[in-house]
Amino acid sequence: MEFIKDLSGGFSVIENLMVSGAREGKFGVAIIYSPNSTASAVFTSNKVVAAPVNYTKNVLKKGIISAVLVNSGNANCFTGKKGFKDCETLAELVSNDLNLPKDEIAISSTGVIGREMPIDIISKVAYESLSKLGNGPENSLAAAKAIMTTDTFPKECAIEVTLTTGETVKIAGITKGSGMIAPNMGTMLSFIVTDAVIPSDEINKALKKSADISFNMIVVDGDESTNDTCLMMANGTSNVEVVNEGKLDSNFQEALNYICIDLAKKMARDGEGATKFIEANVYGAKNETDAKLAAKSIISSNLFKSAVFGGDPNWGRIVSAIGYSGCDLNPDIVTIAIADDSDDVDLVCNGKILAFENTPNLKRAEKIMQSKNVKVNIDMHLGDGEATAWGCDLTYDYVKINAEYTT
Amino acid sequence: MEFIKDLSGGFSVIENLMVSGAREGKFGVAIIYSPNSTASAVFTSNKVVAAPVNYTKNVLKKGIISAVLVNSGNANCFTGKKGFKDCETLAELVSNDLNLPKDEIAISSTGVIGREMPIDIISKVAYESLSKLGNGPENSLAAAKAIMTTDTFPKECAIEVTLTTGETVKIAGITKGSGMIAPNMGTMLSFIVTDAVIPSDEINKALKKSADISFNMIVVDGDESTNDTCLMMANGTSNVEVVNEGKLDSNFQEALNYICIDLAKKMARDGEGATKFIEANVYGAKNETDAKLAAKSIISSNLFKSAVFGGDPNWGRIVSAIGYSGCDLNPDIVTIAIADDSDDVDLVCNGKILAFENTPNLKRAEKIMQSKNVKVNIDMHLGDGEATAWGCDLTYDYVKINAEYTT
Repeated sequence: MEFIKDLSGGFSVIENLMVSGAREGKFGVAIIYSPNSTASAVFTSNKVVAAPVNYTKNVLKKGIISAVLVNSGNANCFTGKKGFKDCETLAELVSNDLNLPKDEIAISSTGVIGREMPIDIISKVAYESLSKLGNGPENSLAAAKAIMTTDTFPKECAIEVTLTTGETVKIAGITKGSGMIAPNMGTMLSFIVTDAVIPSDEINKALKKSADISFNMIVVDGDESTNDTCLMMANGTSNVEVVNEGKLDSNFQEALNYICIDLAKKMARDGEGATKFIEANVYGAKNETDAKLAAKSIISSNLFKSAVFGGDPNWGRIVSAIGYSGCDLNPDIVTIAIADDSDDVDLVCNGKILAFENTPNLKRAEKIMQSKNVKVNIDMHLGDGEATAWGCDLTYDYVKINAEYTT
Repeated sequence: MEFIKDLSGGFSVIENLMVSGAREGKFGVAIIYSPNSTASAVFTSNKVVAAPVNYTKNVLKKGIISAVLVNSGNANCFTGKKGFKDCETLAELVSNDLNLPKDEIAISSTGVIGREMPIDIISKVAYESLSKLGNGPENSLAAAKAIMTTDTFPKECAIEVTLTTGETVKIAGITKGSGMIAPNMGTMLSFIVTDAVIPSDEINKALKKSADISFNMIVVDGDESTNDTCLMMANGTSNVEVVNEGKLDSNFQEALNYICIDLAKKMARDGEGATKFIEANVYGAKNETDAKLAAKSIISSNLFKSAVFGGDPNWGRIVSAIGYSGCDLNPDIVTIAIADDSDDVDLVCNGKILAFENTPNLKRAEKIMQSKNVKVNIDMHLGDGEATAWGCDLTYDYVKINAEYTT
């Protein structure tokens, strides 16, 4: 999309924003200092909810956030009243240090469930992080690193958007989480800041739309964490309003979709133990709901994920996964193709099987399945519902990581 | 239950029943010869349905089955008109050989999806199987072996039931399928025969009830096959009616539950690559639906399944799996215990964590997690909903089996 320009430097592209990160062993603390920003968030739908999620929901009622403290190493979940008190302690710490209203400090956590916060060490790392606040690319990277748990690389994104009015604003974000994958070690956390002027209720609407087609469409193992959070702030430094006459600039929504999808794909690519990235595109479904069901079912199938790991173009597993997803499907007219960056081959076309023993299509499919990026393209020929989901293969290392992790 | 007596010998316990099995490489054929039996079945809910499933649904409209031909090695799925014609060919073969009405022959298949039936070899193995029909334990075992695909052991069960009237009837069954686990190699197939007198519509009602708490409560990987079938026949040889004044004898229903649960557990235990058997018991849920959601969510969680493989009493993963299952849950009052055949320990009691670093409960839990049979017992303290689900651990071998299988 020509109105979106990729930038580097993560949060450093936003003026009047300072961030930092520090770490001691498995405990990391990132600070995002963005005074008096309008803000909103989307949270996990897991019924077991960590203390910081409830705490931050409360803070967000006012719609204004001035700073966020994010810790890794402990999820502060299943920790009762003590858990909530620990959130207050950390908010107070930030409030005092940065001279900000305590009720404008959001708290977010990721790590082990069911263990009380080691508040002394988290506080110590928090002070260290606070002492390093800055607005350079190195500060953004430090923040992205501080929130990592089983992640193998830090995840940042920054873009400039040209609005339909011709004005420009910027959006930047960091994320962690090997894809909502490890309630005890991981969680999906994303923090996004824009310099646009946008009220908190409009952030909420826009963020929900974006999350639905990005964070909610990645699957590593189908497990959903107790701490999943995507929080967005707008500091208004650009002085550019993105809501005009009650309507959000459509380019801004597209750009927010873009950054959320970029961050989500980075998570899927970094799924625990993953060696390959999978994208499932469903077209022609009866409606969008059906398309989402089908795309997520393919990405979630352990059988298909194992087949991708093994490099096997096992389209029977794709068909079967669509079949039990709950979406409408007519096997007699479905088209199934797989693709990578250099080839695209039909396995089944309008219900007719094209890939079986000794066919050129099967040979090409086998080659595609060796790629690091495998795309599955389905056309249901039933309507105009479309959706895309992202995931990764199921590997020995996934089992190893999750079998060997010790409580 | 004292009115249920375990027998050995599988189908051989039923009079006037002859069965057989033969195999050539990956192609096996079992025949169940039970003339003029009332019959009904439950089938996969996958929207992609194999030809033999549709064929047999049609045959069952009459409510009478005289023989079943079951083949392994090819699922006859995604095979269009040719697939349906192949079912007819096989039914004709059995009909001619055994001198039975063609419209009383059921067909069932399991194996690779999307390949035409190698009808010549299947027919050849079918004739061989027909030539071996008999009523000894060896015949039942041969049938159980003929329908195996990735199964590592044949699965049979036979029981005698004392009805509430004091009369006795017998029920026997065989099953295959590493738990609805491999659409391309496996599938859940179960065949049950009783010598009771029972109309086909009553078989249908009873079988649905039993399947709901047995076959539908096992999960190996959540993938559901295109061929799943549980077919039950009653040959009436005992001359004992189990429906009196329109009501099914409650002991008969219990006995059918028992045999279905026994067969289902054998499948879960033989899940691809499994080293451990898991049972999840949920008590005190708001209602039965909630209890089933919670029990199946625990059994389905890749994270928890990996933890069981690794022997880690990671109860955070249990809580999280219940949390995203959709059932009602109050973390402040839930009780979570794990058990094996010799110990039973609370990890969380009424919301209070009892198992953390250096506690005796965690030590005991670690020992339990080393067992071959791990039970998870949850009390939600919210109502009287109860359910049990069965599954197995997620292992390197699961990934290996499913990654290395080649289309």
